[in-house]
Amino acid sequence: MTPEEFRSAGHELIDWIADYRSNLEQRPVRAQIKPAGVRSAFSAQPPETPAPAAQLLRELEQKIVPGITQVQHPMHYGWFPSNASLASTLGDIASSGLGTLGISWESCPALTELEEVVCDWMRQLTGLSDNWEGCIQDTASTACLTALLIARESASDYSENRGGLQAEDKPMIVYTTEEAHSSVVKAALLAGFGRDNLRMVAMDSATRAMSAPALARQIEADFAVGNLPCAIVASVGSTGITAFDPVAEIVEIAAEHALWVHIDAAMAGSAMLLPEYRHLWDGVESADSIAWNPHKWMGTILDCSLFYVRDVQHLVRVMSTNPSYLRSTVDEEVKQFRDWGIPLGRRFRALKLWYHLGIDGIDAIRARLRRDLDNAQWFAGHVAQQEHWRVLAPVKLQTVCIRHEPPGLSGDALDRHTLGWVDAINQSGAAFMSPSKLDGRWMVRVSIGVEATTRAHLEKLWQLIQTQVSEVAAE
Amino acid sequence: MTPEEFRSAGHELIDWIADYRSNLEQRPVRAQIKPAGVRSAFSAQPPETPAPAAQLLRELEQKIVPGITQVQHPMHYGWFPSNASLASTLGDIASSGLGTLGISWESCPALTELEEVVCDWMRQLTGLSDNWEGCIQDTASTACLTALLIARESASDYSENRGGLQAEDKPMIVYTTEEAHSSVVKAALLAGFGRDNLRMVAMDSATRAMSAPALARQIEADFAVGNLPCAIVASVGSTGITAFDPVAEIVEIAAEHALWVHIDAAMAGSAMLLPEYRHLWDGVESADSIAWNPHKWMGTILDCSLFYVRDVQHLVRVMSTNPSYLRSTVDEEVKQFRDWGIPLGRRFRALKLWYHLGIDGIDAIRARLRRDLDNAQWFAGHVAQQEHWRVLAPVKLQTVCIRHEPPGLSGDALDRHTLGWVDAINQSGAAFMSPSKLDGRWMVRVSIGVEATTRAHLEKLWQLIQTQVSEVAAE
Repeated sequence: MTPEEFRSAGHELIDWIADYRSNLEQRPVRAQIKPAGVRSAFSAQPPETPAPAAQLLRELEQKIVPGITQVQHPMHYGWFPSNASLASTLGDIASSGLGTLGISWESCPALTELEEVVCDWMRQLTGLSDNWEGCIQDTASTACLTALLIARESASDYSENRGGLQAEDKPMIVYTTEEAHSSVVKAALLAGFGRDNLRMVAMDSATRAMSAPALARQIEADFAVGNLPCAIVASVGSTGITAFDPVAEIVEIAAEHALWVHIDAAMAGSAMLLPEYRHLWDGVESADSIAWNPHKWMGTILDCSLFYVRDVQHLVRVMSTNPSYLRSTVDEEVKQFRDWGIPLGRRFRALKLWYHLGIDGIDAIRARLRRDLDNAQWFAGHVAQQEHWRVLAPVKLQTVCIRHEPPGLSGDALDRHTLGWVDAINQSGAAFMSPSKLDGRWMVRVSIGVEATTRAHLEKLWQLIQTQVSEVAAE
Repeated sequence: MTPEEFRSAGHELIDWIADYRSNLEQRPVRAQIKPAGVRSAFSAQPPETPAPAAQLLRELEQKIVPGITQVQHPMHYGWFPSNASLASTLGDIASSGLGTLGISWESCPALTELEEVVCDWMRQLTGLSDNWEGCIQDTASTACLTALLIARESASDYSENRGGLQAEDKPMIVYTTEEAHSSVVKAALLAGFGRDNLRMVAMDSATRAMSAPALARQIEADFAVGNLPCAIVASVGSTGITAFDPVAEIVEIAAEHALWVHIDAAMAGSAMLLPEYRHLWDGVESADSIAWNPHKWMGTILDCSLFYVRDVQHLVRVMSTNPSYLRSTVDEEVKQFRDWGIPLGRRFRALKLWYHLGIDGIDAIRARLRRDLDNAQWFAGHVAQQEHWRVLAPVKLQTVCIRHEPPGLSGDALDRHTLGWVDAINQSGAAFMSPSKLDGRWMVRVSIGVEATTRAHLEKLWQLIQTQVSEVAAE
């Protein structure tokens, strides 16, 4: 494809994208496609002859789009807000257009240095001190694995340079809670700790936040039997019900025994843009690493996960490689982000954050987050007033956990009722919410915060739910 | 930013990208920027007020572009070809425009299923049997770590579900060579094996390929002392000199002891699109995992690393998580790519591969690869004929390793001479090559294969080199 062919096809694509984003609300929220529905629309064999870009755009429209669950749709209340703001989308397009290679400072100084700049801007905008330095990773899952790897090497005095984890005598222990994101367990297992050495610390039954006294007792118990407590992963805004582990108490306990504290604020990090919410991670300055995703609620298009550490030298010592073919004449003066994580090569991700902050502006982003917080309070208050409806967890941010509990229904029957009405709405395409388990029973998470979602959309959601519940009851 | 503002700014950006790609050759290859040169062009504080997209585009041009090393430039011969074909760039733009979320099949069925389709197309196009299934990862580094993690769990009968690696009695051993990419050592250390358990198997001195007899002896020696041989990482086209480990012999040795064989074909995988080069990985069908990067020589814009395994069930058993909030009603019928690697969320990367194959077509891609192979042979032949010049390694693909060895120069003096002329050319911006160490001494890698590089550019490169070497000699 020549630049002139690209120009022409690019203009067509931009128009298509602008139309697509304008008309999202007319599409079903959840893809109305059956398994294999997209795959079967394509030939099982690779194409033998090239096609014009216009044909691919037609196929995109006809074969791909029906297979997309519209997370930018104002009636999307599933999982978490996964906003792909158009300003950040533009920055992502610029990144593609530049076609850069990020494997060292020298391979693209601008990629490294703009990443330094925007990560520091984000540090300031979330009120963190300049003891922290950050980079962009793909996801909070990868960041959590990175954190547990550097925690492991810290506790084992760099066992990687000797016999590895398998030569360590004392079992190293990781602490988190059942409420933590699934990626925490996954990271601990991949880092080699083993399930037996993963402690699910007891939680406060109402808030589902980690119990600090239980943590302290568990650590003592581990020491008592000769284990080596290593790391604590604290959830700052858990996935299930947006629970907040008590960071200030946790870092104090950790400090006594030099444990690593990783803060998983994947979703709730966006709230730290608002000074009035920063009390929710009080104590964070004494943690060791933090991950949060602008690609969620804040709206910098995926993938954009911020990873901050206080001890960069330690991070680099664990993750660095220094092959001769990547050597340059300025290595002592620059950052090498390949030593800040698992992959060697990286895209120019800083552009989308720069575009997002630059074009939309932080004031507008903050105003939108506050709108969503207001909407969540309104919705929760409204549901709580209705007969036989419960809001099951404190609404700390923008997630509202609800259940319809008609008289006489409990246990498995209640589960069937819950899944019945929520699956029916999800399947209709009119709205989408995530059913999720709480204390072993299904409930429905209404995760508010799509850019396009207004109060009117929440009113519409409530009508939908009521209608669906009545229909289920009538059957 | 509204869709209409996006439309207008998007058109402007597309025109800018088309012009930028057209005029690349007029820019210096290596960024002519000093450390902190980009960073200092930006305010240390985040922007307080929003700016129009046109202003960001001006800043992109003025502040960012000077900090980009132009890997799409025809005179770029550094590291490896990192082609960002415009067809794949267009697909990447489509991906950004769609703003999808890939965390489960349900969150975007099209993302999952098109990834299945294009990975299978690529399997067919590289002559692999249908025993293999693939996915797209960000880089071969991540894929190699994934491979060693699943190898570790295979050898330890899923130690992750018990006491982890630290509870294993027998040290588990990983085999590779000094010629392997730096990410292999990094992956082994991050996977917890420890440096003491990483064996650098002896190589054939001429080809720098792993010696199969040495591998067999090393494995026997490890068994003899009670170690547990676990995995072999074979380089199919090494980074330094494009060495090819003897896969057929390696898989035979591995089979005797049930060792995992991971094939790192990051660069050379592109050559497997050409049937006449597939003898270079003869035996691959008996390996356990393969990684190669269309985002290198083939030219599907970064990041696009293919990862294939034969035993998907094992992969998924090691990597899977199944949180309730990601449950859907069709989980039994679909693939969940979150269970194929480390990150939970993924971008819609399949689009760039689909666009690349669809618009450019496999025939044109293959013709270009063959052109590059011819060019490399021509260049190597030309250099080898010159007095005092040596081609230091067999030119198996598109990388030519050269050194100017004037009479009387050896040891450190020769190193200074080599770095002297190559650094001078690199700093000039006229061309860029990667100095690299071979047997402890500096040489220069001329990695051919940028889409825009023609025979004429190689002739120009040779003139540049000769002029520079004469100048150094005259000093």
